[in-house]
Amino acid sequence: MRHSPLTALLYKQPEGTPAARIVQTLGEHGALSATQLARITGLAKSTISTALASLKDSNMVIEGAWAVRGKSPGAGRPAITITLNPEVGTCVGVLLGVEHIQVILADVTHAVISDASTAMNSDYTPREAVAVASKLIEQAYKSYGLSTDTMLGVGIAVAGPINPRDGKILRASGVPTWAGVNIAEEFKRVLRRPVIAENESNCSAIAELMWGVAKGCDDFVFLTMDMAVGGAVVLRGQLVSGNAGAAGEFGHICIDPNGPQCRCGKRGCLELYAGLERPLSRYSSAQGGPVTIEDVISRAVEGDDVCRAMIRDTAHVAGRGLGIVTSILDPGLVVVGGRLAMAGDLLLAPLRTSFETHSLVRQSGPNPDTDTQIRGSAFSGRGACLGAVGLVLRSCGRSG
Amino acid sequence: MRHSPLTALLYKQPEGTPAARIVQTLGEHGALSATQLARITGLAKSTISTALASLKDSNMVIEGAWAVRGKSPGAGRPAITITLNPEVGTCVGVLLGVEHIQVILADVTHAVISDASTAMNSDYTPREAVAVASKLIEQAYKSYGLSTDTMLGVGIAVAGPINPRDGKILRASGVPTWAGVNIAEEFKRVLRRPVIAENESNCSAIAELMWGVAKGCDDFVFLTMDMAVGGAVVLRGQLVSGNAGAAGEFGHICIDPNGPQCRCGKRGCLELYAGLERPLSRYSSAQGGPVTIEDVISRAVEGDDVCRAMIRDTAHVAGRGLGIVTSILDPGLVVVGGRLAMAGDLLLAPLRTSFETHSLVRQSGPNPDTDTQIRGSAFSGRGACLGAVGLVLRSCGRSG
Repeated sequence: MRHSPLTALLYKQPEGTPAARIVQTLGEHGALSATQLARITGLAKSTISTALASLKDSNMVIEGAWAVRGKSPGAGRPAITITLNPEVGTCVGVLLGVEHIQVILADVTHAVISDASTAMNSDYTPREAVAVASKLIEQAYKSYGLSTDTMLGVGIAVAGPINPRDGKILRASGVPTWAGVNIAEEFKRVLRRPVIAENESNCSAIAELMWGVAKGCDDFVFLTMDMAVGGAVVLRGQLVSGNAGAAGEFGHICIDPNGPQCRCGKRGCLELYAGLERPLSRYSSAQGGPVTIEDVISRAVEGDDVCRAMIRDTAHVAGRGLGIVTSILDPGLVVVGGRLAMAGDLLLAPLRTSFETHSLVRQSGPNPDTDTQIRGSAFSGRGACLGAVGLVLRSCGRSG
Repeated sequence: MRHSPLTALLYKQPEGTPAARIVQTLGEHGALSATQLARITGLAKSTISTALASLKDSNMVIEGAWAVRGKSPGAGRPAITITLNPEVGTCVGVLLGVEHIQVILADVTHAVISDASTAMNSDYTPREAVAVASKLIEQAYKSYGLSTDTMLGVGIAVAGPINPRDGKILRASGVPTWAGVNIAEEFKRVLRRPVIAENESNCSAIAELMWGVAKGCDDFVFLTMDMAVGGAVVLRGQLVSGNAGAAGEFGHICIDPNGPQCRCGKRGCLELYAGLERPLSRYSSAQGGPVTIEDVISRAVEGDDVCRAMIRDTAHVAGRGLGIVTSILDPGLVVVGGRLAMAGDLLLAPLRTSFETHSLVRQSGPNPDTDTQIRGSAFSGRGACLGAVGLVLRSCGRSG
């Protein structure tokens, strides 16, 4: 496999040439005007013009007369926006879910080209993961007539925390048999491209930061509400990994030290009360057959009392958990994702009420400046794989 | 009052002249060799030499042949260390405690010149605070024959969170009548110097970061164990304030939503179980007279079962709280301060055991690289006022 000419410019140290800094900034932001490029990179406009001319000559960037976000319509001619040339660079996001693998192929302008999934037996092996994902990647490139030479990197979202020191999945993972595996290395061996692996909730947070409800907000927390409960902490625009990669594990906040034992070994973790796994399994038994999270949500929307109560109960405990998170981090914004977030206000309204009850009163009366805002994710539980694409676009210029 | 000639160089934007960057770096670090200065500032050695020569001519910095920390003895002649001239700059730290006010006067080489306190009636007013602290400051300068012209700034440690947006003390403060007061402004009006106010636990964390057990560790949390419980979060070498200044309020982690009501309005806060206020008040009643934290510790050291149990019980709940903090931030280091930390292993041993029980198992077996280290503070419950001095030294070059 040959490498895209963008590769050399993208994977550089932050203190690179003006051309490299422009390419890295466009990789992270998508489309920008020359004025925005100057503001973000801190380079002089003349330096940007010279570098852009040479990047255009070598076909690395292209210009378009598209409207720039935030530009008022009718304010003279539309600003010229600059993007990386989508023909010279593509990125791949892979979600290694508990029971499926998803692959998104996107170009360097942040446009999604394809999105495909394969169902997996639970507890599939890392080797199977690499084989299935590689096949999905190959198919994606083939069906869109793209060369894999354009592949700049692969981001992988994993259902478990990853130790930033050695890249290995921790024992606390949702897939315990993967503990100790360096999944990025497994993929790198086969794909021969830069590969970055991150915890699934961290990837979801990156998607919110780059394209979702946290755009423009450098400090927020993300709460995943699904069969399990996870989370992520973003401070000053960067993910907080923690010492061993276990930051943001909101599902393992101890709610009741005398409660039932959790898969992590502790007792009474938040996940046991705010995750859908236990109530859904009880409800499925009562219904005499498997019921999905999507079923529960649609029944709740139709007015089913039991399904509404199930969502309200998880919201109540999650609000208490977020109250605890806010005693520690006092975030201005909480983004709630995972499939349960698709329940919208059926989840968010009781969650906000519970959060108010369980969080420190900071001022008298409501205050939009200081109160924590709780918002639903922009991605209907599908942000993690998109965030894995984001990892590649963001990591450019940061890692080797 | 005239201003010290250092003021203009200290209070500048980070992108200042080489002289300003040298002065700011020495202000933050105390004594450094020219080689260390070059490494930290990123300036060329020749640039440093030129700037130092001019700073020495104007008497702003001085040289000494003191041993540089970490330099092995006998390795040739000792390195020349450079410090700011202690005669041109002094800093003041003020602790506005619940029942006393403490003032530390230090010079720009980080040497403490004087440390004095005045007992206060509880619930004293901000006006009284300014009057008493100003008097202590005046006395300190006078008794050491120093001119207040050398005063570069004043740091104030307050028993409550401060909103970083408007500088006002939040309602959740330990001194509820101060809610809404901008205490830095109150001091500035009288002292006519730059004044920085911070939450007491945040100040303690700064002291640990600059001179204590967290020196060299950019990511840690600080837990205050005293009559009340507080805390601070340091990430990438910076305090985390949160959206409204309420980050690090570990005392208000909800332990039991059906528990007794806390002064903050919520129920079952960690502080009600891990703070000494309630058990000490019960014990004092039983003993027929007031008993202090210091008394409890010395009796526990002598083997008193009741006092040992009191410390062990707070340790148990604090360990559970730290387990929760670790699910959210996964810090590599926890520093435990406040007066109760003077109990040493009588507190720390059961606290570590409880922490192990209540924190996520990340790897099989102990691992010094990934396990969270729990250490006692270096300052015997007196770090907050020192940290207030540190605020001034660190803020140089950051704020206007």
